[in-house]
Amino acid sequence: MAEFSRISGVPTATIKFYLREGLLEPGHRTAPNQATYDESHLRRLRLVRALREVGGLRIETIRRVLESVDGAEHPWNVVGRVCDAIGETHRRERQAGPEARRAARDVDAFLAANGLPKRAESSSRAQLIDALASIRGALGTDFPAEMLGWYSDAVRDLAQNEVAASGEIGFRAHFGTGGPDLEPGARDEMAAMLEGIVYGTVLFEPVLLAFRRLWHERFAEDRVAEPDDRVRGLSRSARR
Amino acid sequence: MAEFSRISGVPTATIKFYLREGLLEPGHRTAPNQATYDESHLRRLRLVRALREVGGLRIETIRRVLESVDGAEHPWNVVGRVCDAIGETHRRERQAGPEARRAARDVDAFLAANGLPKRAESSSRAQLIDALASIRGALGTDFPAEMLGWYSDAVRDLAQNEVAASGEIGFRAHFGTGGPDLEPGARDEMAAMLEGIVYGTVLFEPVLLAFRRLWHERFAEDRVAEPDDRVRGLSRSARR
Repeated sequence: MAEFSRISGVPTATIKFYLREGLLEPGHRTAPNQATYDESHLRRLRLVRALREVGGLRIETIRRVLESVDGAEHPWNVVGRVCDAIGETHRRERQAGPEARRAARDVDAFLAANGLPKRAESSSRAQLIDALASIRGALGTDFPAEMLGWYSDAVRDLAQNEVAASGEIGFRAHFGTGGPDLEPGARDEMAAMLEGIVYGTVLFEPVLLAFRRLWHERFAEDRVAEPDDRVRGLSRSARR
Repeated sequence: MAEFSRISGVPTATIKFYLREGLLEPGHRTAPNQATYDESHLRRLRLVRALREVGGLRIETIRRVLESVDGAEHPWNVVGRVCDAIGETHRRERQAGPEARRAARDVDAFLAANGLPKRAESSSRAQLIDALASIRGALGTDFPAEMLGWYSDAVRDLAQNEVAASGEIGFRAHFGTGGPDLEPGARDEMAAMLEGIVYGTVLFEPVLLAFRRLWHERFAEDRVAEPDDRVRGLSRSARR
């Protein structure tokens, strides 16, 4: 246990907590007060720590993500379920009423038109519906669903590159930085891809949001560079 | 108060709570138990409710955002400060140590190379530094800072379009859906742009993240469409 903690860089108290919560399999017991931990323990520990400390996910959500990663379901279902578990963390209060039903129809039409998954139980779909209803509540009920295209288009190519890279990311998370020259042994390749998606989603969400805010600041700076121009520019834009 | 609640669609208990917290100016008192609320109250109420219910911001953070919106600072500073207040909500545990210092150097070099703001107190910059250090902790210390370019490029054009539209958004939030044919009166145009940025950031963050997860699911589905191909494809990719 002490060596496991040293190699992984995770405090023993944290490891014991994960064991107690069932997020980590017990080591192979070799003596009454000794157990050995192998590569698969190390890999799982890294994943749990990333989900907890980087993603800020609740223990219950981590448990569900791990169940999906370990499950023997069809890969497509598993990717969806992993995305659901991560998405639930971000979900706001569920909306109801006629505006929510209209938002649901508009979101489903948008997803269908763009070839995106529209499983009824998808947490990402629910999040889009809630967001569209909130946006219309704040900005006006005539806010067109087509505007969602700005946001979908912005991340489409990024997501494609990320999925293409996710096997590699999962592999690296699995075997550390040694790279593919390490003997892969009996690794589960599907699990490696799913771990790549989990890492990619959780670790890079703050990166995406931070860059969007920085570009807002940068372009707002351009726009208000000259106080007089600014007021004229805004007047024109607001009256357009 | 009852009519203010009816027009805004916000329960009186919530309005009273905002008044008590100083997030909303008291109405103009016309009798001991009567006060009138005007357009500026309605606009502020909409903004506070969006920050609270959509953005999930803490009262203290909302107070800081409003102070920035109302402050008489140079516009550029205000946009930065509003972005900071929103960004703080998303900040994870602050990292320390040599890896964090290396991440800070790499992030600052990246921001400078891309013409992005690198104010020392920027919460977006702090978030990028934390994220890069976490990513390297999980995926390997050789993870190159240039990979941040994927994420910056994905949202650059989006942010530019959003800032260009933010005067319009602020205007609509201000005057409802009536559009520019309403007499704008004595509105504060800078505040309208800032409100637009606040709305745009808070309301559309869940949209951006939900679409990224949906595209992940969609492209992972492509990739694993054939179980046999899947395993071969992953083997190739993992061994590359």
